Amino acid sequence: MDDSERRQRHIGEIAADRRRGASQLARRCLEILAEHARTCSARDAAELQRELADLADALRATRPGMAPVQNLLGAWRDALQTPADADPAATRARASALAQQLAARSRRAVDEAAAHAAGLVAEGATLITHSLSSTMVEVFRRLASRGVRAVVTESRPLLEGHTLARRLSAMGVATHYITDAQMGVFAGRADAAMVGADSLLGDGSVLNKAGTLLLALAAREHGVPFYVCCESFKQSDAMPGGIDLEEMDAAELRAAPLPGVTPRNVYFDLTPARLVSGWITEHGLRSRAPVRDPG
Amino acid sequence: MDDSERRQRHIGEIAADRRRGASQLARRCLEILAEHARTCSARDAAELQRELADLADALRATRPGMAPVQNLLGAWRDALQTPADADPAATRARASALAQQLAARSRRAVDEAAAHAAGLVAEGATLITHSLSSTMVEVFRRLASRGVRAVVTESRPLLEGHTLARRLSAMGVATHYITDAQMGVFAGRADAAMVGADSLLGDGSVLNKAGTLLLALAAREHGVPFYVCCESFKQSDAMPGGIDLEEMDAAELRAAPLPGVTPRNVYFDLTPARLVSGWITEHGLRSRAPVRDPG
Repeated sequence: MDDSERRQRHIGEIAADRRRGASQLARRCLEILAEHARTCSARDAAELQRELADLADALRATRPGMAPVQNLLGAWRDALQTPADADPAATRARASALAQQLAARSRRAVDEAAAHAAGLVAEGATLITHSLSSTMVEVFRRLASRGVRAVVTESRPLLEGHTLARRLSAMGVATHYITDAQMGVFAGRADAAMVGADSLLGDGSVLNKAGTLLLALAAREHGVPFYVCCESFKQSDAMPGGIDLEEMDAAELRAAPLPGVTPRNVYFDLTPARLVSGWITEHGLRSRAPVRDPG
Repeated sequence: MDDSERRQRHIGEIAADRRRGASQLARRCLEILAEHARTCSARDAAELQRELADLADALRATRPGMAPVQNLLGAWRDALQTPADADPAATRARASALAQQLAARSRRAVDEAAAHAAGLVAEGATLITHSLSSTMVEVFRRLASRGVRAVVTESRPLLEGHTLARRLSAMGVATHYITDAQMGVFAGRADAAMVGADSLLGDGSVLNKAGTLLLALAAREHGVPFYVCCESFKQSDAMPGGIDLEEMDAAELRAAPLPGVTPRNVYFDLTPARLVSGWITEHGLRSRAPVRDPG
């Protein structure tokens, strides 16, 4: 496989991935970039830097809604540009080390955010969540010994919720597994709702798997607090008006085709900041949305 | 098959039915009662009346949450008791005719409610609905020639929404078919949300397929009106505090089993009256909840 084939395979992998959350996917991108930095052919340091920057941009373009992919790859790309190395070997080593450092910072931030979140949950409480978030897996890992119970939505179309239920089962967390449609009932039986996020927008609103807005609305309806927990690499400058909700292949619904009936697969929804009781990152709990200049 | 076997088979049929809505199921019960009235063995009119009343009660007990089953079968049972016939043949004829009359009244009420509902929808509007309601099928039948578009949720676990999509396809109604989790997105792209109901409670709240509350909340969030359309046989005296939400077999979720993970299948949820923009029955549109004595 030559450089170009490898590049295309990796871009395809990231574009098609539905299993990993945004942080995990960003770290996988950093692995790919580190590997390319070590192995791709380039005549000199300048060409190598150009190629790596191009690949970072191509990977970022596959998942525009995922802030960690934008932020971590953007940080990597920017740090790589200056200063220029004279020697391609130095660029290779620097690019690879930088990717590893950023991935480690991201992992540490997730761990710290999860620790803050777990500290907010009382012994024996019931926590309802939606979709699969690696951050929420870390939260539950910290709560498993404290008798906390989970309510997990299946998260159609691809049922990532079943993967989360499998992780919770392995941790010994007593879990109720529900259809997404039952969120209106089970939010009222929980002590708190908590989700990860694909991105936090500039005004504190939450871009996450479709259905998250419904959970936030149901939690508010029942007087149950709704928290979002994620590393601050998920913070984006974008505002809700500038967000185009990504739509994935409608074949994921596996609906028998019917004339005149169009299956739709909008993957994300936007939960406005006023429905969020608290934002939990590696810096701790913040219970007010950021004040942003609307311009 | 003797009387007792036939009785058990019919009770089982009604208990297990997940395809028919509440009105259709009530009318199927009336068919069953008419058939039993014509064919069951009984020594005299008093025994016949007792047997038919017992069967009506047994059928009602299978679906406590479905007001039309309670109301239509209750009306049939009460009318049958008085006056007593001397002749069992007279009782058989009267019971059978009464069941047919009530079923016809129910069908007419559904048609009239649907006509009122269709009158509220502008040409070319987009209507989002949840679950399969035979009343909503009638509403869309009246709207098919007016360029109205539908957004239909799949309605897990059993995907009744796909059956509705098939009906809409046959009518030529352009339809978007979504996962339940996408209601938060698509409610904001619709002109109105409209659902049928399993029951209307005494305070105007709506007992309907799980997920209905989420649609009502999403509609409110987006400033889109949320209507409920049903025959008035769906009106119940029950108040929300007295409702025990029915749970069905969790095997319907078809979730791979996991230790410590309990699939749940609560079939209904309750939408409070304050989220309802209007109640549409055969009597027309009412935009205020009934004022009820809280005692």
